[in-house]
Amino acid sequence: MKLESAMAVTPRKRGRPPRLEPAYGTSREALIRAGVALLSEKGYSATGLEEVLRSAGVPKGSFYHYFASKDAFGAELIDAYATYFAHKLDRWLLDGNTAPLQRLRNFVADARTGMARYEFRRGCVVGNLGQEMSALPELFRDRLHGVLLDWQARTERCLRDAQASGEIAAKADCTALAAFFWIGWEGAVLRAKLERSPEPLDLFADLFLTCLAR
Amino acid sequence: MKLESAMAVTPRKRGRPPRLEPAYGTSREALIRAGVALLSEKGYSATGLEEVLRSAGVPKGSFYHYFASKDAFGAELIDAYATYFAHKLDRWLLDGNTAPLQRLRNFVADARTGMARYEFRRGCVVGNLGQEMSALPELFRDRLHGVLLDWQARTERCLRDAQASGEIAAKADCTALAAFFWIGWEGAVLRAKLERSPEPLDLFADLFLTCLAR
Repeated sequence: MKLESAMAVTPRKRGRPPRLEPAYGTSREALIRAGVALLSEKGYSATGLEEVLRSAGVPKGSFYHYFASKDAFGAELIDAYATYFAHKLDRWLLDGNTAPLQRLRNFVADARTGMARYEFRRGCVVGNLGQEMSALPELFRDRLHGVLLDWQARTERCLRDAQASGEIAAKADCTALAAFFWIGWEGAVLRAKLERSPEPLDLFADLFLTCLAR
Repeated sequence: MKLESAMAVTPRKRGRPPRLEPAYGTSREALIRAGVALLSEKGYSATGLEEVLRSAGVPKGSFYHYFASKDAFGAELIDAYATYFAHKLDRWLLDGNTAPLQRLRNFVADARTGMARYEFRRGCVVGNLGQEMSALPELFRDRLHGVLLDWQARTERCLRDAQASGEIAAKADCTALAAFFWIGWEGAVLRAKLERSPEPLDLFADLFLTCLAR
């Protein structure tokens, strides 16, 4: 994620220290961080630029120094969230020390903890923006769909491991099951936000896993 | 649905015809109809009152004659959509001439046709508003959740019929399965809108039914 690379420490050169210029990276990344948080909570249409600026502590005049438009900013937010989330998925789903279906359970448990941390106010940026796609710039559509296909591919790898180890049937269609998982999981995150409860996440994951195990 | 009752014909009394006052009902129902259509497409935050008025062909001054506020209007739109959709569900799911799981398939096929009619631009009002709940008046939360519980109860009845006729296992938990269906189905409608394609609806429904049949 760009947030992390921006915060990486550059090795100090000998001699006079360079003029400190933290503002560019810091403000830019603060805007991305604030934008992702607001999109995960309220979506795109309900998030005003003013609120992003206030939340990031960045003056209004600076925004267009970093981003060409609100839409260009939105596209960067999708990318930043997608990269962050892909790493999170891999951390759980490629964990070679854990049986494959337990990895999926661990991902679900982590998502539950993550949502509880913000009292179920924050959901999935991709789910939120997907829901309001009719009101968004068309250039977001392929991007959002592409992100979901990427997450599905990562999930499919885990399901194939489960198949190889005999946890799910050899004839199961792992591509379709991974798509099914992501279709339903976005619904579960939406419902958990609505109910402010982890129950929909647990109910969906439990029945999905039961269905797989048969 | 109020739309229908407003359009019902009142029996004519003898004598001088009463002064025609179609405006109240007509404008009010036109506003509800336009509001539901816009919410199903764009959700609440992205729908401006101006657009509802323009779409309904009602002058701005009239709106507050019918509704106390945009939020009061929104609450009525949820109720109108809920009632309309409950009738639709019952038409398919209580169809005694059809085997229970086929009724569910018929509901899915009808939803697919309905979404295709508007080129997958319109989704579910309850799913859309649920997704943006963080930006909506709190009074919508219980209402939206209540609607989903109502639809689940109607779906559960159909699953119990399937259980009684041996289409699904006697030990299946029909309450949980109906909740699972609605969690995932809202995700499928969201995804179909995003992809402008019926595939997510079919994929979700097919795997759900396969899972039931085992």
